[in-house]
Amino acid sequence: FPSKQAQVQTTIFTKMSALATEYGALNLSQGFPGFDCSEELQALLAFYSKGHNQYAPMAGVPVFKQSIADKTKLFYGIEMDAQKEVTVVSGATEALFCAIHCCVFPGDEVIMFDPSYDAYDPAVRLAGGIPIHLAMDAQKGFQIDWELLARTISPKTRAIMVNTPHNPTGAIWSEEDLNALAEIVKGTNILIISDEVYEHIVFDGKKHYSVLLHPELRKRSFVCGSFGKTYHITGWKIGYCLAPEYLTREFQKLHQWVTFSSATPLQYALSDYLKEPKHYLGLADFYQRKRDLFAAAFAGSRWKLLPSHGSFFQCIDYSEISDELDVDLAVRLTKEIQVASIPISVFYQKPPSDKILRFCFAKNDDILLEAASRLVQL
Amino acid sequence: FPSKQAQVQTTIFTKMSALATEYGALNLSQGFPGFDCSEELQALLAFYSKGHNQYAPMAGVPVFKQSIADKTKLFYGIEMDAQKEVTVVSGATEALFCAIHCCVFPGDEVIMFDPSYDAYDPAVRLAGGIPIHLAMDAQKGFQIDWELLARTISPKTRAIMVNTPHNPTGAIWSEEDLNALAEIVKGTNILIISDEVYEHIVFDGKKHYSVLLHPELRKRSFVCGSFGKTYHITGWKIGYCLAPEYLTREFQKLHQWVTFSSATPLQYALSDYLKEPKHYLGLADFYQRKRDLFAAAFAGSRWKLLPSHGSFFQCIDYSEISDELDVDLAVRLTKEIQVASIPISVFYQKPPSDKILRFCFAKNDDILLEAASRLVQL
Ligand SMILES: CSCCC(=O)C(=O)O
Ligand SMILES: CSCCC(=O)C(=O)O
Repeated sequence: FPSKQAQVQTTIFTKMSALATEYGALNLSQGFPGFDCSEELQALLAFYSKGHNQYAPMAGVPVFKQSIADKTKLFYGIEMDAQKEVTVVSGATEALFCAIHCCVFPGDEVIMFDPSYDAYDPAVRLAGGIPIHLAMDAQKGFQIDWELLARTISPKTRAIMVNTPHNPTGAIWSEEDLNALAEIVKGTNILIISDEVYEHIVFDGKKHYSVLLHPELRKRSFVCGSFGKTYHITGWKIGYCLAPEYLTREFQKLHQWVTFSSATPLQYALSDYLKEPKHYLGLADFYQRKRDLFAAAFAGSRWKLLPSHGSFFQCIDYSEISDELDVDLAVRLTKEIQVASIPISVFYQKPPSDKILRFCFAKNDDILLEAASRLVQL
Repeated sequence: FPSKQAQVQTTIFTKMSALATEYGALNLSQGFPGFDCSEELQALLAFYSKGHNQYAPMAGVPVFKQSIADKTKLFYGIEMDAQKEVTVVSGATEALFCAIHCCVFPGDEVIMFDPSYDAYDPAVRLAGGIPIHLAMDAQKGFQIDWELLARTISPKTRAIMVNTPHNPTGAIWSEEDLNALAEIVKGTNILIISDEVYEHIVFDGKKHYSVLLHPELRKRSFVCGSFGKTYHITGWKIGYCLAPEYLTREFQKLHQWVTFSSATPLQYALSDYLKEPKHYLGLADFYQRKRDLFAAAFAGSRWKLLPSHGSFFQCIDYSEISDELDVDLAVRLTKEIQVASIPISVFYQKPPSDKILRFCFAKNDDILLEAASRLVQL
């Protein structure tokens, strides 16, 4: 039986979380909160456990799609048609998979910026497409090289993957980035697939620049979102895709064969919950405090913290401490001092010589302080 | 923007359910219970709404996978390795999609028997495969023509789709069917993808013959199951795939890019619930009574009921009542007498001239009687 994905292994998240469990480590690897969602959301789920247990409509429960459109209007000032431009899916991973699969034909090129989230490349390949990886440079703050992108565009370019706030680096896009991308794709048929699951986690008073905010981008974009990171419910696996009607139509054709519809009681609970903006507007402050608490614990150490402008990840350069490969160090730290992290090199097609680990700071303060104190003793 | 699925439309289930809602019709079209799941299961979900809201492991919560393996042992007498042969997915649709995508290479042929569930053909095409449709004959009780299958096998045959109890017809496989298929695939590398979501709904004291029960089949099968039909929770979208380790490995590689993992609180609730065999062992009797109640209401009418041996569907031949196409009649009945059903012809590549509608009898008795009384008056 020949393997269709011979090179593909278990994701780094599965590996590191399993190793963390095996060694009883503090798990700062896989990106999920180390605390529960709010009691109010738990109560909503308990409430909707009655009478809301049959198939949701394929594209999502109508009141939920409306809640998502309302939030988009409130947060971005953008009007979306709840029935024609919103699709509920089983997590942002499904949104990304369906967005890629519904538009990528065999032989099409899809451009992505490394370090890139590990689900992009295999999804493109499974659709018969060709992933084109452009590296971002840690020294340059993981900014995109627009000249290089412009030169890389070809008649075969079907789509460009965008991810802001960026996982794994915590970099974010500015308005200039939106303009630069718009300039490059203007007049082409190139589509944008934008992963914005950390949309509500941007620090230091900065703003999240969604591709929705630029008309030239919006008209060609699939925006993939999720409630997992926003409401501390990574285990609910409810996400959505926002896209113009002509793209949503194709997206839904895929979605109906992939999962058909998503969990009904979870959709109803979220529909109510997301009507209250305070449920997400305080999130950036909540995580900024954790970022700062974690960072402060490294002051004066040889761990060099890279800027984290958004997401709940802190990248740290360990080059003054060790010359091991990041994949080796991540394993060793998990085993020896019981602190699990994610090596950055696995998100590159051609791993650079950087020595960087990613730590998730969506954990209780005591865990963050304990992890940092073990690390600075190295 | 060229469409990858130009011919594909919204599924018949979405269409008929939407039409039923629009016309306030009794909805006997899409297959879902018209009643809620048990209060015990609701209470379990409410219980697990606390503290079980982060990512489940990619392949499923370990205790849940064990519960599934235990049920497989109890119900079929088959031992499965919970950690190596069980994968939890977001509904049987995802199981089918991943099973097809993980093994079908561009150019591979996949054989399916019409009427075939509408998600099979597009999933094969999206993987670059070639669906080969073999028609089953209503006059012959929708039995498989084994001679025809044997002649259709080619060096390009990658897989054969099995579906028992069968949707939309209610036909079921016998031990002889398992033997006949085993005889044909023996000595080949052909895989089996078996859709058995109605495993617990088989009538008249008959037995469900899962492909798991035949060693020659089991060793090459992906068995796609679901809890939606078994526990009246079609809206939970929790299913599973049982397969030998070498197939499970490839299946999980797909699953990790498609949805990564499935809803954690739902997995925990189900894990507890399915430990109690009485929660599914009474299901066949429960639905047999509904089948018989519904059927009795057509006695003496010109509606000719086809045998329903399993599933919760009743196919009815209306040839003595109308010579309209089934797609037209299904729409007209929804609009004019407010009874929605599913036309059978849409499940064929080459629709036969049969005049058959499918009615879902997973509804409260009063709905079933009211629907039948409207129909017999035609
Ligand atoms: C889908 S598991 C990975 C979670 C995550 O997004 C991350 O850790 O980067
Ligand atoms: C996934 S919606 C279709 C439900 C169903 O299985 C059917 O009606 O046949």
